[in-house]
Amino acid sequence: MTTSDADVPAERVRAAVSERFGTQLAFPAETHGLEKLVEIVEHRSHRSYTNAPIAPELLRLLFACALSAPSKSDLQQADIVHVADRDKVEAITKLIPDMPWISKAPVLLIFCGNNRRIRQIGEWRGKPFANDHLDHFMNSAVDAGIVMTTFIRAAEAVGLGACPISAIRNCPHEVSRLLELPDWVFPVAALTVGFPDHSGHITLRLPLDVTVHENRYDESRAKENIERYDRRRHETQPYRKQRHVKRYGQSEFYGWSEDKARQYSVPERADFGAFIQAKGFRLD
Amino acid sequence: MTTSDADVPAERVRAAVSERFGTQLAFPAETHGLEKLVEIVEHRSHRSYTNAPIAPELLRLLFACALSAPSKSDLQQADIVHVADRDKVEAITKLIPDMPWISKAPVLLIFCGNNRRIRQIGEWRGKPFANDHLDHFMNSAVDAGIVMTTFIRAAEAVGLGACPISAIRNCPHEVSRLLELPDWVFPVAALTVGFPDHSGHITLRLPLDVTVHENRYDESRAKENIERYDRRRHETQPYRKQRHVKRYGQSEFYGWSEDKARQYSVPERADFGAFIQAKGFRLD
Repeated sequence: MTTSDADVPAERVRAAVSERFGTQLAFPAETHGLEKLVEIVEHRSHRSYTNAPIAPELLRLLFACALSAPSKSDLQQADIVHVADRDKVEAITKLIPDMPWISKAPVLLIFCGNNRRIRQIGEWRGKPFANDHLDHFMNSAVDAGIVMTTFIRAAEAVGLGACPISAIRNCPHEVSRLLELPDWVFPVAALTVGFPDHSGHITLRLPLDVTVHENRYDESRAKENIERYDRRRHETQPYRKQRHVKRYGQSEFYGWSEDKARQYSVPERADFGAFIQAKGFRLD
Repeated sequence: MTTSDADVPAERVRAAVSERFGTQLAFPAETHGLEKLVEIVEHRSHRSYTNAPIAPELLRLLFACALSAPSKSDLQQADIVHVADRDKVEAITKLIPDMPWISKAPVLLIFCGNNRRIRQIGEWRGKPFANDHLDHFMNSAVDAGIVMTTFIRAAEAVGLGACPISAIRNCPHEVSRLLELPDWVFPVAALTVGFPDHSGHITLRLPLDVTVHENRYDESRAKENIERYDRRRHETQPYRKQRHVKRYGQSEFYGWSEDKARQYSVPERADFGAFIQAKGFRLD
């Protein structure tokens, strides 16, 4: 192997980190496993796919990979619903008018939190369930997120692309009825999967100084770091469309913080808690 | 490359899936990327490490990898606190008496949900925050889980091992005080990281027929499948210690469902919801 060959993964990692975080990282070029880190730092979501189908055996293998992920206390509170019925795919797509591309994906999955099994097990084994509180809702939601993340990783390893869709929670009752989700089972996110038809792009991220802390939470420079990030977004990945223009007008400078501040100045999923409570959870 | 070389990843994937799920999967041995799936299906947690330290530059690179993960609506609601101060590591270890090995890990991280930034951004940009409800708590918790999962993947890629510790939520007030977590920032899980000093083992998982559904949630065969799983656990990875023996006695047959039913027959983290509310969240 020549020196320049050996340098390739290090260069790619450096370039991706620099593009994403606006930071130059120093690390030894001979770091073991660097070629695997390339895939992680170059991660991109894909919402546009070729027509190539995904073989059922491959999909099942990816489910096994996903469910090999760590699970809180070995509780295994994440379930996957594969929406194979095209009528159901269309019905779900219609529930999310902003995302008509959902129905074009070869595969649509719904990752669910499942706090039902642990309750059933208690019944079957003649034990009370003494944990009707927030932590159990959170455990199952986080487990579903961990399994979905691992599914995406496995899918990317075989050349597929994916896009997580939390907007499925805009209409939880309807999704729940369509998929016949019983009490204590709830959708966390949908995922579209297929062979990508273009290369996608790296989403810029907040500087590491904002999100990584040593020994104590430190936000002393958060505002200036976020302003710097706003400028970087505006210069390199400008937003194509501004939100809520009727209310706030067109901003000449429109960075990440302006976009997010506008987005959450309007209620979104204010009724999700009521849905979760209707599924039987206690949230105190 | 000989045929038997080419078969190796396929054989390893088959063996790991068979061990973990008790299932034989059929998939083409020439599946692209199979060597990467090996690492996913062979995943194991590590809680015992050599004394070898982790270089600060490598750790920073792993943070960048972790924070390259997908983020709900680009909101970036996950933060990482690196507990480098050994006094703080000791203090956290003392809070979790069952896990004295925590302080032996070269690195201890706390993955936090952060719903504070989006609120600050609103203030800075002169916008109201109109989303004081459950979905925002869930978003930040799940984002933290996704970032932690991606950190574990990156750590494993460079030869490290890790173990997630949700027990950090047994004492959220104390952890929050130690790390100076402000309102709307909360610990989701801790993670110990280091170079593993043994190979670890594959944790058995529920059959895919229990956790993967097509078109609709189906639990018609859940009970018999879980009984089968219980027998598999009992035969191949028997529990070394039974829980709550004073209350339930020693069971001759002690499978996964008996262990989990016993575990959650006793309240655990019943006060976590009060902690989250004290951090400023509304949970309805």
